[in-house]
Amino acid sequence: MTQVSLKSTERIDDLQRAGLKIIQDTGRFCFGMDAVLLSCFAKAQGGASVLDLGTGTGILPILMSAKTGAAKLTGLEIQEESADMADRSVRLNGLEDRVSIVKGDIKEAGRIFPRASFDVITCNPPYLQGDHGIVNPGDAKAIARHEILCTLEDVISQSEILLKPGGHFYMVHRPFRLSEIMCLMHGYHLEPKRMRLVYPEADKEPNMVLIEGIRGANVRITVEKPLIIQERDGVYTDEVKELYGF
Amino acid sequence: MTQVSLKSTERIDDLQRAGLKIIQDTGRFCFGMDAVLLSCFAKAQGGASVLDLGTGTGILPILMSAKTGAAKLTGLEIQEESADMADRSVRLNGLEDRVSIVKGDIKEAGRIFPRASFDVITCNPPYLQGDHGIVNPGDAKAIARHEILCTLEDVISQSEILLKPGGHFYMVHRPFRLSEIMCLMHGYHLEPKRMRLVYPEADKEPNMVLIEGIRGANVRITVEKPLIIQERDGVYTDEVKELYGF
Repeated sequence: MTQVSLKSTERIDDLQRAGLKIIQDTGRFCFGMDAVLLSCFAKAQGGASVLDLGTGTGILPILMSAKTGAAKLTGLEIQEESADMADRSVRLNGLEDRVSIVKGDIKEAGRIFPRASFDVITCNPPYLQGDHGIVNPGDAKAIARHEILCTLEDVISQSEILLKPGGHFYMVHRPFRLSEIMCLMHGYHLEPKRMRLVYPEADKEPNMVLIEGIRGANVRITVEKPLIIQERDGVYTDEVKELYGF
Repeated sequence: MTQVSLKSTERIDDLQRAGLKIIQDTGRFCFGMDAVLLSCFAKAQGGASVLDLGTGTGILPILMSAKTGAAKLTGLEIQEESADMADRSVRLNGLEDRVSIVKGDIKEAGRIFPRASFDVITCNPPYLQGDHGIVNPGDAKAIARHEILCTLEDVISQSEILLKPGGHFYMVHRPFRLSEIMCLMHGYHLEPKRMRLVYPEADKEPNMVLIEGIRGANVRITVEKPLIIQERDGVYTDEVKELYGF
């Protein structure tokens, strides 16, 4: 494992899986349960070429390096500091042969990479529209949360360009955007094929949706059983414990 | 309550609500939990004008006459025998002043009724596409289950014509059609605004989706908490018992 340098606001967190670690900066956006659940929902065949759009800390390619047999995992990140931090996490884990971080804009992704070259694309995009309430639009957390630098349509349209026919697109998002998500995916021929709603508790509204699209597939979706995070007493459900490897 | 005649294959069932009864024919399609859940999911303001597309036995307008203050409930039904049976159920319940059954084709609904004249449209349409496995396409049950005489797009496109701006569209359907449902509703400006998935048990895939669209609304949907039908021991959940008035 390579020795990497840390900035004063950065820390190394243990991912509790295959000895993996990740560098995070408390002043920037830190990965959440969204990313972990997406890494469990997404699948990649052995030898697959995987792209993560807006990779942030690099959490998704790093987790998927352990969970899948993907041959090559690429993380695209527009923010210089995040890309640099993700790159150091790759080296910290000795994953340079399988994972690479590219600094670049999602809106340009279809030009940065060869067309129809990925088997799998993952994305944990900014969830919120507009920039209401944002004091500093250059703020790293705001960029991760709000559609400041890219929209849902950018993510989906670029994914259509980059996926091989029959390639798989995996995204986590907020349920209130579900209608747009489905219409855009259908419109860009990433047909929604599998969906799972994540409910914080069994009697609460869902706060996340996990969705899989297949480029060029026919119109028919499987909606999976609910993913419930907590029991009423606040304890994680057995399924979540298993996903987290407790 | 008017005395009505029954055919030999027909029977009168008690709806367990407000003394309502319905005539059903065991050789034809009998209403299911879908219709009951839709009647609970749908809302109608006092004085509203409500249309049910493909009303079958008339179950939806009859239940909604008890659950809402709707002034006028109309059921459109293409099958002569079903329309006649629904009409007799209306008279059996003495609802002639509020509920009327019209024999006609959903595909022609936009010409049968005045444009933009309904506050609410409900529909429990055929769920299945194509006619594979259908021996007799004139079969009443097949017509109720398969898109033989009308498609999902017919239902949604005609509803756009018939709803007032801001009017509400309520439908129950199968989750595997969810992507089409959302894309068609969005495309015909019946924006999906509220959705609830119905799970037979907490750890099973959902088998129904209840969805509300509003004509001309903005793009943003509320996904509600799961509606779970049975506990693991096969007993109805408290919510379902309440919906059924047990």
